[in-house]
Amino acid sequence: MKKNLTRENRCWIWYPGDWEIYLHEQISVRRQMRGVIYPAYWRLDRHYSSVIFTYAYELEYPEEITIHADGKFAVYLDEKDNERYHDHRMKLPAGKHELNVTAYNDVGVPALYIEGEHIKTDSNWQVSCYDKQWHTVGCWQDVLNCPETKPSKFRLETSTQQPLTVERRTDGWFVDFGKETFGYLQLNGIKGRSDLTVYYGESKEEAEDRDHCVLLDRVSLDSTQTDSIFTFKESRAYRYVQIVPVTEDFQIESISMLYEYLPVNYRGSFKSSNDRLNEIWSTALYTFHLNTREFFFDGIKRDRWVWSGDAYQSFLLNYYSFFDREVVKRTLIALRGKEPVGAHINTIVDYSLYWFSGIYDYYLYTGDVSFVKSQYDKMISLMNFCLERRNNNGMMEGIEKDWVFVDWADINNDGEVSTIQLLLCRSLETMALVAKLVGDNDRSHDYSKQAVDLKSKVIDVFWDHDQGGLVHSRLEGKLNSKVTKYPNMFALLFGYLNEKQVETVKQHVLLNPEVQAIKTPYMRFYELASLCEVGEHRFVLDEMLNYWGGMLDLGATSFWEEYDPNQTGTEHLEMYGMPYGKSLCHAWGASPMYLIGKYFLGVTPLSPGYETFVVEPHLGGLEWIEGTVPMPEGDVEIYMDSKIIRVRASHGRGILRYHKEGKTVETTIASDGSWLEVAK
Amino acid sequence: MKKNLTRENRCWIWYPGDWEIYLHEQISVRRQMRGVIYPAYWRLDRHYSSVIFTYAYELEYPEEITIHADGKFAVYLDEKDNERYHDHRMKLPAGKHELNVTAYNDVGVPALYIEGEHIKTDSNWQVSCYDKQWHTVGCWQDVLNCPETKPSKFRLETSTQQPLTVERRTDGWFVDFGKETFGYLQLNGIKGRSDLTVYYGESKEEAEDRDHCVLLDRVSLDSTQTDSIFTFKESRAYRYVQIVPVTEDFQIESISMLYEYLPVNYRGSFKSSNDRLNEIWSTALYTFHLNTREFFFDGIKRDRWVWSGDAYQSFLLNYYSFFDREVVKRTLIALRGKEPVGAHINTIVDYSLYWFSGIYDYYLYTGDVSFVKSQYDKMISLMNFCLERRNNNGMMEGIEKDWVFVDWADINNDGEVSTIQLLLCRSLETMALVAKLVGDNDRSHDYSKQAVDLKSKVIDVFWDHDQGGLVHSRLEGKLNSKVTKYPNMFALLFGYLNEKQVETVKQHVLLNPEVQAIKTPYMRFYELASLCEVGEHRFVLDEMLNYWGGMLDLGATSFWEEYDPNQTGTEHLEMYGMPYGKSLCHAWGASPMYLIGKYFLGVTPLSPGYETFVVEPHLGGLEWIEGTVPMPEGDVEIYMDSKIIRVRASHGRGILRYHKEGKTVETTIASDGSWLEVAK
Repeated sequence: MKKNLTRENRCWIWYPGDWEIYLHEQISVRRQMRGVIYPAYWRLDRHYSSVIFTYAYELEYPEEITIHADGKFAVYLDEKDNERYHDHRMKLPAGKHELNVTAYNDVGVPALYIEGEHIKTDSNWQVSCYDKQWHTVGCWQDVLNCPETKPSKFRLETSTQQPLTVERRTDGWFVDFGKETFGYLQLNGIKGRSDLTVYYGESKEEAEDRDHCVLLDRVSLDSTQTDSIFTFKESRAYRYVQIVPVTEDFQIESISMLYEYLPVNYRGSFKSSNDRLNEIWSTALYTFHLNTREFFFDGIKRDRWVWSGDAYQSFLLNYYSFFDREVVKRTLIALRGKEPVGAHINTIVDYSLYWFSGIYDYYLYTGDVSFVKSQYDKMISLMNFCLERRNNNGMMEGIEKDWVFVDWADINNDGEVSTIQLLLCRSLETMALVAKLVGDNDRSHDYSKQAVDLKSKVIDVFWDHDQGGLVHSRLEGKLNSKVTKYPNMFALLFGYLNEKQVETVKQHVLLNPEVQAIKTPYMRFYELASLCEVGEHRFVLDEMLNYWGGMLDLGATSFWEEYDPNQTGTEHLEMYGMPYGKSLCHAWGASPMYLIGKYFLGVTPLSPGYETFVVEPHLGGLEWIEGTVPMPEGDVEIYMDSKIIRVRASHGRGILRYHKEGKTVETTIASDGSWLEVAK
Repeated sequence: MKKNLTRENRCWIWYPGDWEIYLHEQISVRRQMRGVIYPAYWRLDRHYSSVIFTYAYELEYPEEITIHADGKFAVYLDEKDNERYHDHRMKLPAGKHELNVTAYNDVGVPALYIEGEHIKTDSNWQVSCYDKQWHTVGCWQDVLNCPETKPSKFRLETSTQQPLTVERRTDGWFVDFGKETFGYLQLNGIKGRSDLTVYYGESKEEAEDRDHCVLLDRVSLDSTQTDSIFTFKESRAYRYVQIVPVTEDFQIESISMLYEYLPVNYRGSFKSSNDRLNEIWSTALYTFHLNTREFFFDGIKRDRWVWSGDAYQSFLLNYYSFFDREVVKRTLIALRGKEPVGAHINTIVDYSLYWFSGIYDYYLYTGDVSFVKSQYDKMISLMNFCLERRNNNGMMEGIEKDWVFVDWADINNDGEVSTIQLLLCRSLETMALVAKLVGDNDRSHDYSKQAVDLKSKVIDVFWDHDQGGLVHSRLEGKLNSKVTKYPNMFALLFGYLNEKQVETVKQHVLLNPEVQAIKTPYMRFYELASLCEVGEHRFVLDEMLNYWGGMLDLGATSFWEEYDPNQTGTEHLEMYGMPYGKSLCHAWGASPMYLIGKYFLGVTPLSPGYETFVVEPHLGGLEWIEGTVPMPEGDVEIYMDSKIIRVRASHGRGILRYHKEGKTVETTIASDGSWLEVAK
């Protein structure tokens, strides 16, 4: 318990992780199927309802404090717990004392806010759930810092938006908001009394299909009982809505919506000589923002859930756009949940492993060592769970109904799947890294050794010399000779291949039309990143223009969960055996933003928090590109055309790397914000 | 998933243990200090808010069912989870199908109740918290079987009771309810408007002491706004209340209270030739019933919490009075909580260990193998936690702020406390027993061996030949030569001493005035039981008449947390540094009921569920005794005077054991309910 008597910002405090876990519980049951709840199908953990806060202080003079609590509270001093108070104003005695506050809230999160001249709640407090362990409290200093805004009442921001068109039809209204959106529908100036149904659609077809649209609302309205603006209770994903009252003479003056969003800074930017690519970038940004909410969602209509594999890509997208640390931390906390680990994250083996990589990247991009350290205990228990599920060969398989996902594709994931072992390897490296950060050198050493051993075992077992790549899996000692792109992409991206192997993977796997093609934007993310890693920027640019451009051609205003250029008409809307099952606004559809930031603007941190970084821009066939990539502090700005490269950065030790006359040149970027310009 | 198409009782179902854990969370924050909450200071676990129920059925014809849920629900059939329903009436198709119902409730417990001709909720359903494990649901068939009574709304019963006296004082009313009670105060026929304070007291002194009474209520009343009967919101423990309105002309027509209680059967009974003893027995019964509620409480004023060491004695008291299985099960579930084990139960080492003994005795007295089996996983994890906390000698010590309690007494519990090792030994025996019941023979064998090894080690290390008993502890390899009664009582009661050791313990420890006396009724429980075990019934009778009789002499209407005959006046009310800190209605004060049932009426089960049992009655100096001891089915009835013994039982294979002309005689008791009479 640290003393802190300086005047700093005060904020709400809670048991670390509990507000995030509470919020995750709440949002995980907001998915609906035609009005019926559809809760996430993994264990939802819960906040502790009863906690105790503590703070040791020293005051020269007595001080009056004001106490706010989200829940019931009791205050006592110096362990004298027979003397309890719950007055909102209290005079603290001078001298050295220990201030204890118990708080109880079984509905929301028990949280505390104290205002005094010197004594106030902030990250210097400690908290316990009465298990004899004390932890630094959780808080969100920048946002949850006002006594009136209790953490349990936290809501995203909203702003009113008007539709593009409102069509009066015989039995109602048909509204087009002009683009995919998310929020609360509003009916203004209603007259009369009627039951009323609203059919929502991400597509026109969906909103028009009263029997099959996924989202709908049924309400009874009466203008004598309702405010002049009726706002629907639940926020939904849609572009189109069809509003159908039962009563013929029911009137609505106008229709609008409260767009609901997480306020973020649009720090990343991009422009190029290709307008189509620019539109792809901005549509990706919008798609991504819609899915960047309390947490990183997979899609806003479906599932509205937090999936680790999806979130992992969102983390990377975020580092090249909003650089919002808080939503990354919230998502990592929510995904991991509480002890004990009873099943894999989202019930999927790979999804447990992506969580570790998420920690790795968070540290690399932000340098936020304190958050990473705070997750160490939970990393150990999840890793123990994973390691206990290895077979006799030291490899992970799906056991006891574990789901081995890898991708939506025609692949067989029984037995030892090479991709899974590579993800485990990266996870072990993450463990080694964080163990070292917390000073747990023995464990760090051990994890490192396990990672090295596993890496060489994976190459030994799965590398197929004749086919020039890693094969997909081994079942009961027998190799599946099928080469898939998945293990080769990951091995390449994690730097597990030598130069020669990289070259054969490029030629024989990544660029080989005989190897099974990837159909989901989810795995195209890694595929296209891998191709950039091996210098195929021009190829990747074409892919982006064709694949994501293809969606734009079909009128997409946000990118989809899946896109198959060979489909036609309403086939594009179907998925999971439902006519409108496909999510038309899916975070993983936004990957061009990452590819552009990392491989075209070419910015990569080399050490945690961009202390060192490299800028290696590529035109990939474009005439010029320019843009901004955010760092923890300040940005990197890049301009490049066929003649020059200009870079400036306000932080860190950056290196500009470029190719001139067949040679690789490296030049230091000044950290004073002045432009570096080189001729190519 | 079992099929069940017979017409049986239906009931609410939930995730096993979750309703109990929810209820425990709620009651654990009802303790107050002068209106301020005083939550239990251990981790309070919580119910899962999101669960899924499943049931496989086969129907000849379609069937309509009615669905009730405590929370939101969604139904789907045969894993087709894109088709969800939440209508309260639904037609199930004929044939073989799997019925799935998801339920969400973050405030109360998600629970389900289905009524159909063949399909209904009962203990044949399974449930999961989505961790890939399925469990048999929890339910309380006898009580929570009505669709209108949602499990989260469960309340104890109430009945109106009138005060003994109501005294009008200058500024209010002073009420005496005639005896210790628990419930909601009621003001009838109020007139006027006033703020009003109620001061409660277990003693007259407490209710009269406005500045120090522990419980109080402050309300604002207005007869134009209130029902004619005003019932206070919270139920409290008291005998006396002082009601003080601010406004002089505020009128109350009459005062009553809603006595709140758990309905139980008074199955045990006792009468003897000694009226004082009979009064002790009935006061003990009343004390015990007041503390037998949602769970077994320690005391009704303070702490209103569930303490494992206290509950363990309540379990035994219950077997000789109400034989209410449900409250035992609820208490065991609540005490154990959820995974992971982060600290000892109630933070006390001994209290973790009593929990195991509670399981042992529950099985012995009830024979309920299915409940005991259902706790096996939680037994393993708690035992692992305990075993991991052993030192290099294989003994448990308090580590990392563990609290080693043993008793409120002048004892030093640092290092290896012999009593703790004995309790661990008994816990290992319980593990071995239950492991065998579930067919886990390897573990059973291992636990048995550990128990045997530990037992002999404890005797080796702590037995002091010269002093004729076990010494209290060993610290850093050095024995504490102080002999205390604690380890000797437990070793004797658990049957760990040989005949010779029993005799020396009796003479040199239990009956030795030089050995530190026990002051709490809590440990007197084991002390007096031990003395009965060695035939000192006459001595124990005197102790009961003096000690518990002493409290009656002081006007007790329920037995206290502590009683020191040497104290006088208001000293009897003080404890924990508070003038009214002592609980005057404490479950552990009721021990004579156990001593009488087990050692005077003399009934002990020999095998689980009283399949075999022994009746060995003792007069202990009384002219005659008679009484009833409940068995799982039926009762044992006993009458004894100096000439004859009469016994009858309606179940099991009982043996009457008695002493005649210096010899021990054993006679079989018929199980047909006919009387067996023997002459002494």
